Amino acid sequence: MTQGDPAGIGGEVALKALKPKLSRSPVSYLMVGGFDQLQKTAKKLKINIPLIRVDRPQTAAGKLAVLDLGGPLNVKWGKISKDCGAAAVRYIENAARLALAGEVKAIVTAPINKEAIHLSGSRFPGHTEMLADLSQTKNFAMMMVGGPFKITLQSIHLSLADAVKKIKPAAVFEKLELTHRTMTTWFKIKKPRIAVAGLNPHAGENGAFGREELNVLRPVIQKARARGWDVTGPHPPDTLFYWASQGRYDAILCMYHDQGLIPLKLTAFDSGVNLTLGLPFARTSPDHGTAFDIAGKGKASPNSMLAALELSERLAGLHP
Amino acid sequence: MTQGDPAGIGGEVALKALKPKLSRSPVSYLMVGGFDQLQKTAKKLKINIPLIRVDRPQTAAGKLAVLDLGGPLNVKWGKISKDCGAAAVRYIENAARLALAGEVKAIVTAPINKEAIHLSGSRFPGHTEMLADLSQTKNFAMMMVGGPFKITLQSIHLSLADAVKKIKPAAVFEKLELTHRTMTTWFKIKKPRIAVAGLNPHAGENGAFGREELNVLRPVIQKARARGWDVTGPHPPDTLFYWASQGRYDAILCMYHDQGLIPLKLTAFDSGVNLTLGLPFARTSPDHGTAFDIAGKGKASPNSMLAALELSERLAGLHP
Repeated sequence: MTQGDPAGIGGEVALKALKPKLSRSPVSYLMVGGFDQLQKTAKKLKINIPLIRVDRPQTAAGKLAVLDLGGPLNVKWGKISKDCGAAAVRYIENAARLALAGEVKAIVTAPINKEAIHLSGSRFPGHTEMLADLSQTKNFAMMMVGGPFKITLQSIHLSLADAVKKIKPAAVFEKLELTHRTMTTWFKIKKPRIAVAGLNPHAGENGAFGREELNVLRPVIQKARARGWDVTGPHPPDTLFYWASQGRYDAILCMYHDQGLIPLKLTAFDSGVNLTLGLPFARTSPDHGTAFDIAGKGKASPNSMLAALELSERLAGLHP
Repeated sequence: MTQGDPAGIGGEVALKALKPKLSRSPVSYLMVGGFDQLQKTAKKLKINIPLIRVDRPQTAAGKLAVLDLGGPLNVKWGKISKDCGAAAVRYIENAARLALAGEVKAIVTAPINKEAIHLSGSRFPGHTEMLADLSQTKNFAMMMVGGPFKITLQSIHLSLADAVKKIKPAAVFEKLELTHRTMTTWFKIKKPRIAVAGLNPHAGENGAFGREELNVLRPVIQKARARGWDVTGPHPPDTLFYWASQGRYDAILCMYHDQGLIPLKLTAFDSGVNLTLGLPFARTSPDHGTAFDIAGKGKASPNSMLAALELSERLAGLHP
């Protein structure tokens, strides 16, 4: 697990989530971050978790091993800073190296601040792109896991007008392939039932309200089915999530950010997990940011971090 | 209540919904439709409801009064026909006249078939436009009511690309005004809390992913607030529906069809009600179509029709 931005809630939710697991879980955890800041956080917020400083990936019974990569000395909670950004990037880079070398089975990342990593000179908008670059991964996507849903997003941080323009055959097939691969390889479902959402109301009603379903989605679905995959759609988006909530599908490919995130957050408000598809290792993260407004106050809920931790263990094959 | 297309499930769900209400409710119901076809439907589907033919708006204790406007003699279940379309239009026109004359307090419409009314020569795409024309209503909108939500849709049957282009100040203010008027006048909430959803992910994140929030929604919201209305937003769409489900808002103005209908159908799959805003009378309808595939089989659920009926009674002031 990476600590994230030292000025955010990352350390707090990580320690809160790991504390009950440390004695009970058969899994060994390694925190990649700054030992001093984590110890300060535990003390200040009265999170009673024993930490031990290590300088290579190792674990210690009953204690949380912290691979100490240092960090700024006087962290101001909730402040954007170049030094915090640089530390956050260092934690991620090291965790990725450990995962690529097979020294850890999965990575869970605590939130970083985009502006802070930008100030530190990072050219990446976030974790996903950074991890893709470090692992030389060309095709990747974001899947959100929460409540009854596993949702791959065709696009993320784009205006809705731009998201519509990105609905092209190669791009959609790429995300569909990533979804299928993840469901079979990581989730170990032999023949996953994947639903493709339409883009337009009523999935376009045979071209009456938009032609992306006819021109893009149907041919892509046919191509996937020709490979023997159980892919259906394009489904009318308004009823699809109800049917998925009834267990009809294993995963859904969504055409834009809010199509997937509205139903996800409605049913799994603070327990959604972000899973990066396409990486050579399992990587999850909680579905929230650095929450600078409540950093250092002890108010942050570890629910999403705990869900991210548990999903990473499951994907890494550490649970049956 | 109108019968809708005689070949669809309208008569069936209407009779099923009215049957238990007939003896218990203090409200008097009038069915506008074809007496013979309704009686056939009740007999065939064993819906034990006493019907009485009337030729002007009147009611009869313990019986359902049917204002008989005739209709095709040999209706084929599930078939699109010009005669059924013409009958459906006649039922709507008569019901609208009764409402405009104050002879009925509200209208509940059973579903019609667009193709059938088109064949019969109607130039309207559906109920809403027809009722707006009959009542000389210029500004109108669709609100969906279901589960914890009251949702006004900025646009309905348009491609997503076209829906994005329709986000203009005058158009959005019009729907906001209709929502505010409906919440105060019909729902009798003195100062309704109305949330305006953003169009883009994260409501555009200050222009980073789309500028409609800055250029259109914020000025419209300011204008509404200057009138003393409790209007907030633009809210990030992904979390808005969660907060609304927790009771934070009385109504939501949604920027496109699926933004509102995905959360609505997820929480109120077969009990959503369509309410037309802007008409001089209360008009509701169930959230489903003629369902020609199951017409005449007795399989149709009256849940949505029942919800439409109850909402219309509430809006007409027939319940406290």
